[in-house]
Amino acid sequence: MRHMLNPLDFSVEEIDQLLTLASDIEQNFPKYAHVCNGKKLATLFYEPSTRTRLSFESAMLNLGGSVLGFSSADSSSASKGESVSDTIRVISCYADIVAMRHPKEGAPLVASMKSRIPVINAGDGGHQHPTQTLTDLMTIRSLKGHLENLTIGLCGDLKFGRTVHSLIEAMVRYPNIRFVLISPDELRVPEYIRDDVLRANNIPFKEVDNLDEAMPELDILYMTRVQKERFFNEEDYIRLKDCYILNKDKMKLAKPDMYVLHPLPRVNEISTEVDDDPRAAYFKQVQYGVYVRMALIMTLLEVEKPC
Amino acid sequence: MRHMLNPLDFSVEEIDQLLTLASDIEQNFPKYAHVCNGKKLATLFYEPSTRTRLSFESAMLNLGGSVLGFSSADSSSASKGESVSDTIRVISCYADIVAMRHPKEGAPLVASMKSRIPVINAGDGGHQHPTQTLTDLMTIRSLKGHLENLTIGLCGDLKFGRTVHSLIEAMVRYPNIRFVLISPDELRVPEYIRDDVLRANNIPFKEVDNLDEAMPELDILYMTRVQKERFFNEEDYIRLKDCYILNKDKMKLAKPDMYVLHPLPRVNEISTEVDDDPRAAYFKQVQYGVYVRMALIMTLLEVEKPC
Amino acid sequence: MRHMLNPLDFSVEEIDQLLTLASDIEQNFPKYAHVCNGKKLATLFYEPSTRTRLSFESAMLNLGGSVLGFSSADSSSASKGESVSDTIRVISCYADIVAMRHPKEGAPLVASMKSRIPVINAGDGGHQHPTQTLTDLMTIRSLKGHLENLTIGLCGDLKFGRTVHSLIEAMVRYPNIRFVLISPDELRVPEYIRDDVLRANNIPFKEVDNLDEAMPELDILYMTRVQKERFFNEEDYIRLKDCYILNKDKMKLAKPDMYVLHPLPRVNEISTEVDDDPRAAYFKQVQYGVYVRMALIMTLLEVEKPC
Repeated sequence: MRHMLNPLDFSVEEIDQLLTLASDIEQNFPKYAHVCNGKKLATLFYEPSTRTRLSFESAMLNLGGSVLGFSSADSSSASKGESVSDTIRVISCYADIVAMRHPKEGAPLVASMKSRIPVINAGDGGHQHPTQTLTDLMTIRSLKGHLENLTIGLCGDLKFGRTVHSLIEAMVRYPNIRFVLISPDELRVPEYIRDDVLRANNIPFKEVDNLDEAMPELDILYMTRVQKERFFNEEDYIRLKDCYILNKDKMKLAKPDMYVLHPLPRVNEISTEVDDDPRAAYFKQVQYGVYVRMALIMTLLEVEKPC
Repeated sequence: MRHMLNPLDFSVEEIDQLLTLASDIEQNFPKYAHVCNGKKLATLFYEPSTRTRLSFESAMLNLGGSVLGFSSADSSSASKGESVSDTIRVISCYADIVAMRHPKEGAPLVASMKSRIPVINAGDGGHQHPTQTLTDLMTIRSLKGHLENLTIGLCGDLKFGRTVHSLIEAMVRYPNIRFVLISPDELRVPEYIRDDVLRANNIPFKEVDNLDEAMPELDILYMTRVQKERFFNEEDYIRLKDCYILNKDKMKLAKPDMYVLHPLPRVNEISTEVDDDPRAAYFKQVQYGVYVRMALIMTLLEVEKPC
Repeated sequence: MRHMLNPLDFSVEEIDQLLTLASDIEQNFPKYAHVCNGKKLATLFYEPSTRTRLSFESAMLNLGGSVLGFSSADSSSASKGESVSDTIRVISCYADIVAMRHPKEGAPLVASMKSRIPVINAGDGGHQHPTQTLTDLMTIRSLKGHLENLTIGLCGDLKFGRTVHSLIEAMVRYPNIRFVLISPDELRVPEYIRDDVLRANNIPFKEVDNLDEAMPELDILYMTRVQKERFFNEEDYIRLKDCYILNKDKMKLAKPDMYVLHPLPRVNEISTEVDDDPRAAYFKQVQYGVYVRMALIMTLLEVEKPC
């Protein structure tokens, strides 16, 4: 039995198979309408995340399965002092696969060790959020046609941004990738990313603090929200949050086939005037997220691909 | 693509078609069990409303579709600062139709402007609640056989009662309608209803403060809850809430075919002793609400009527 | 129309039929995948209980039905002052069967009196929780092969433990049952259980305060959580909660075919080192809970057993 706890749990070949399946789902959607009939997904969200939860639910419903679960810890048994290990053994009796969101790093891993059903990490604290990374990979592959030979700009909060770290770790496995890391000094990527991930793999990268200058060379621009909840004080948050706002003028500096991604929700780091630009891909990305979760659910449940 | 934001979005003819479909659903319920197979309804309830939410969910399940969503803003991304415009673009990737309840007037309209899927306003603040109005219309038409030639009494909180205003606006489009507006002076219908809706359409109406005297001439009595949350102070609420309580004695004054409607929940404005009176239609009304929502979902999704 | 408000609502013969159906479901699971197609379960949880709610939802989905409802009173109309009697009449328009959890004793009974659909009590305060009792009975019958000729140990909080009282009341209807009641003096079973249930039915029992001494003679050991919320003060809770902790050493004193049950969630009253003992039956019990709820839903809906 496989779980999905970390995007690196799957090899490059397995990711490739998964993304190929997701693309087939996109192109032959009705073919998959019943492949999970009678299967049940449990969505265990110990902290709210509407977008991620509904993406999983939509994915499972699209496959003909059904969904049960909870959307916040208030309505769970966690408040009665039950351990995640016990909860997952109970949920194993109720469902065929589980998507777990938890504020504590490693909770899905702990769950997977006692689970009788596949566990998908739907985000554990600042740690991992593998289905977001898979979504990002599918978006890039679908729009650019490949995952190699790309210059990828990452902009905003690169220090606390979980999705940024995961995306870097996932992309360094592909040939000829360059990164441009665009952030204020206070929000640079952590040391371990620079040393253990980038330098250790001989990946070219540069760190800059100016979005305008970086624009012309990018194939992908990955914008991130400056998440208030990751800051230590209000003052720093207010000072930094508006530094890197993408607007029409900045888009003029970009290549005609440079796509803008964002894990959402956006606050104001992408001006709404950019939304109608054909290179704005952040809402398409949401749709790819459903397809990739459908592919992941099928893969972990070992459901046969319909012919 | 059509939305349902305001009961007046549909012409009298379109309402007539909708109610005819709803009646057919009532009479041939099993025929409709699969017409929305594979379709997904998103229920986005930024404020809780169990009754309305479950009516929509029941409607969609009755049609063979499925449901996803949230039941209060706590468990949504709203708290992360996302705009309704962004949320609806995301939800457009997850579902085929959406029912949105929002505390702010106009939020469903804003959503509809960016939505790729039909939006149903499931109540926006004190503004509109079109499926309640459609429910009221279907109840009257089903019980009386027609929507014209009726004397309609509206009783209770006519000032803040959103459903009352909508029902008046909807009924003035039918021939030979009279209104008896029964309320304490403090809770009379707003000036714009009297001037712009009633007088502007030459609709006969009278305003009275005595329920007993009004009873004998009514064909329909629409009771409303005196909603605590609409009051400015506790004292006014306590003084006024019990003024207009319908009981068995008052029912003796009414015609044998006068029906009592109420949008529910009731607190004490209708004594439970009235519940067994065959003219008490407020629980039937709930059932009609499911049928009319089924018809609305089918209509907006442009689902073929089964033969 | 039948309801399930109290485990004693069903005769011994009816319980026997129900458990036989549940066992058939366990052994021929796929046969039941569509017996409730088109049926809807409403889960009305006025207080959160994830385990119980999800067990019901899993059960209904396993039968091919669908589910709607709420998971806490915050998101219900209860806050608008609606009575349970009115709510159930509304829900009767939305669903085919209801599972209700309520903090007030007797609320499901009140609901059943106005309901047009079968009501299952999913726990009403400290009063009854019949589907837990049915789960316990199925677990004992499945593991021991019968419900008579058993010595049953009940350990922990026997004073406030609702499930303990219900299990005693249910088991005294079977021949040749003995109880060993293991608790600190402060948490002994209430007087009415000793007098009106045990002595009135000539059921042999003893009360002891030492788990070790009781172990060798037991066929079933039913452990319970010392529920913090039932205590009057923190100090008593801390002093008593760890008194009766089951561990590997204690298990060595037990018969090789003595099974350990627990209604869950567990806090620390069963050491996790016991989990791998083949006699640890508390997670199997969860699975039996799903089967027995499937059987109950089918029985109350009068669904034909498939051939």
